[in-house]
Amino acid sequence: MISPSNRLSDVKEYYFSKKLREISALEKQGKSILNIAIGSPDLAPPLNVIDALNNAALEVKANKYQSYQGLLELRQAMADFYKTSFDVSLNPENEVLPLMGSKEGVMHISLAFLNAGDKVLIPNPGYPTYTSVTKLLHAEPVFYNLSDANNWQPDLEALEKQDLSGVKLMWLNYPHMPTGAQASKTLFSKLIKFAKKHKILLVNDNPYSFILNDNPTSILSLPEAKEVALELNSLSKTFNMPGWRVGMVLGHKKYIDAVLQVKSNMDSGMYYAIQKSAIEALKSADSWFTDLNKIYQERRKIVWQIMDTLQCTYDKDSVGLFVWGKVPSDKDAETLTDYLLAEKNIFVTPGFIFGSQGKNYIRISLCESETLLKTALKRLV
Amino acid sequence: MISPSNRLSDVKEYYFSKKLREISALEKQGKSILNIAIGSPDLAPPLNVIDALNNAALEVKANKYQSYQGLLELRQAMADFYKTSFDVSLNPENEVLPLMGSKEGVMHISLAFLNAGDKVLIPNPGYPTYTSVTKLLHAEPVFYNLSDANNWQPDLEALEKQDLSGVKLMWLNYPHMPTGAQASKTLFSKLIKFAKKHKILLVNDNPYSFILNDNPTSILSLPEAKEVALELNSLSKTFNMPGWRVGMVLGHKKYIDAVLQVKSNMDSGMYYAIQKSAIEALKSADSWFTDLNKIYQERRKIVWQIMDTLQCTYDKDSVGLFVWGKVPSDKDAETLTDYLLAEKNIFVTPGFIFGSQGKNYIRISLCESETLLKTALKRLV
Repeated sequence: MISPSNRLSDVKEYYFSKKLREISALEKQGKSILNIAIGSPDLAPPLNVIDALNNAALEVKANKYQSYQGLLELRQAMADFYKTSFDVSLNPENEVLPLMGSKEGVMHISLAFLNAGDKVLIPNPGYPTYTSVTKLLHAEPVFYNLSDANNWQPDLEALEKQDLSGVKLMWLNYPHMPTGAQASKTLFSKLIKFAKKHKILLVNDNPYSFILNDNPTSILSLPEAKEVALELNSLSKTFNMPGWRVGMVLGHKKYIDAVLQVKSNMDSGMYYAIQKSAIEALKSADSWFTDLNKIYQERRKIVWQIMDTLQCTYDKDSVGLFVWGKVPSDKDAETLTDYLLAEKNIFVTPGFIFGSQGKNYIRISLCESETLLKTALKRLV
Repeated sequence: MISPSNRLSDVKEYYFSKKLREISALEKQGKSILNIAIGSPDLAPPLNVIDALNNAALEVKANKYQSYQGLLELRQAMADFYKTSFDVSLNPENEVLPLMGSKEGVMHISLAFLNAGDKVLIPNPGYPTYTSVTKLLHAEPVFYNLSDANNWQPDLEALEKQDLSGVKLMWLNYPHMPTGAQASKTLFSKLIKFAKKHKILLVNDNPYSFILNDNPTSILSLPEAKEVALELNSLSKTFNMPGWRVGMVLGHKKYIDAVLQVKSNMDSGMYYAIQKSAIEALKSADSWFTDLNKIYQERRKIVWQIMDTLQCTYDKDSVGLFVWGKVPSDKDAETLTDYLLAEKNIFVTPGFIFGSQGKNYIRISLCESETLLKTALKRLV
């Protein structure tokens, strides 16, 4: 057999992929597992989205190869959405690039900007894909610690004292997953100054802006942001369309061009009917967000009760699709997670999978019905 | 501004992307351009495919994240299709991986198997993406020449005489684009022996098997093929679904696992409703191919007349979606292409874009209606 590339030796199987096999084995034994771990929105997208899909699929051109850049109409809808939501002006001709999900953007951006050996600043705790992709490209992850004490914000003074030579890119993710912390405009402004000084490309991954958040913020709304920052966004959480694979990368034409140069050499344009559906979703009225967040608010109340029952502490001001709870100091979070799965048949996410700074925490998702969450609560009291 | 990765410096803009801008400028001047250059199927997919999309989109689970591996039902349909079409047995559990188009497979396979500096055997002429992706990963393209004299088959004796140290991967593409040449089972068998001897992974890119071809062949139908060969396939040409982005990679579990390890770190699973549509397409009756090829046969007759008018010679036994014509020895193919666009407003593909071995050729696509092809013919006589 021919051996795989060295790049694979450093990348582990995704925690959830392993754990879901374990759960499936338990289910085969007849156990009823309540999975409140995973952030895959369970609610339906705006109604007109599916009508748009059906109508568009009937057009003959829908079947043909699509432009790498996507329909201008889609880029316009994305630009309009950024104007309305964040007061950010973007030229749909060259500052907006639709992606088949923002996750692929992590790879495209990394391919476009990293050479082997470049260093990449990655939040700890943070989304594991930033690290995997960095390692796959033989670049070097340099973790920056976030902590409860600092409200999960990077400590820029500490970073300035570090050796930053060779750092090419810094991943930001505000609102932050898994903690739900937000960045203030002041923080973004400091980060832009920091990035300009050290010639570091900032990428803010921003898919949680509209969930339980009264103050959606884009890093691109700051002055001079476009010189050093890109932003990723997605329809997955905002419009309950994770399975549809629609994301976007936004920023300066020069940066978008570099990403497009990579992307056009590795895939083709997004399915026409999905683009038309995305346009409909992006035009949703404000009431969409109000209605959506009412549901998440009710669910969150129950998750808070679950956290209380487990004697975990949490921040009621955090935003996004999860509740992040600190386990009591005499308990170990991974042990608690294993106990909950084995003894209570409840699957929650242990914080360590997001990095060492998450090891005293558990994460519970708001993507399950009130009924299911109440059942989980009953199993615990 | 932050500079892009070195990997971009070697990869040019795709020829068509530049040329289509030129065409669009001509059209703005009021010219009516007949584009017979590009292989994007214009016909509709099987009828039940769109019904399947509409029905599946209504299921609530359609909106959620899908498995990286795709639905077992889709992998089973792909395995069944390979059994029926090529008499190849594949285990849908672990020898079949759905892709969002086979083009992304070129990148996934290259990431999974190549280290920087590895050499990659690439056909000249051939699909430009093999070269771009190889360069993007800092691997080294080593072109092997195909020629009319050798019926566009690799000269294995000549290859054996070359220094093959450091060669990790060899791209094959039979039926071959742009020439329409086929590989015999004898050739595949020799290639497998060659690959085993030199520890080279063969990847046969096989999307043209069912177009104007009485003898569809998979490299995986050869004994011992799975030890050294993967195959890419696609629904784009076979079922007129290029815009839907459905492809697959097939082969030994160990190789598929390596590709999945890359893929799961850079995207998520394919939209559920597209998977359900793909399943319907793969179940199409034999009459689908008969009806489809009747249309292409009629179109090809007209394209042959166009080639005759241009005094180009071609192989009537070639297969696939294009006619590949050799220009008369006193003419230059690129000059002819430019002349046809400027003076006759007909866009054909010059062969040089597929490599130096294509420089005396032009390629015409069968993806335009008889009416349009007849209009092109009339402009020339």
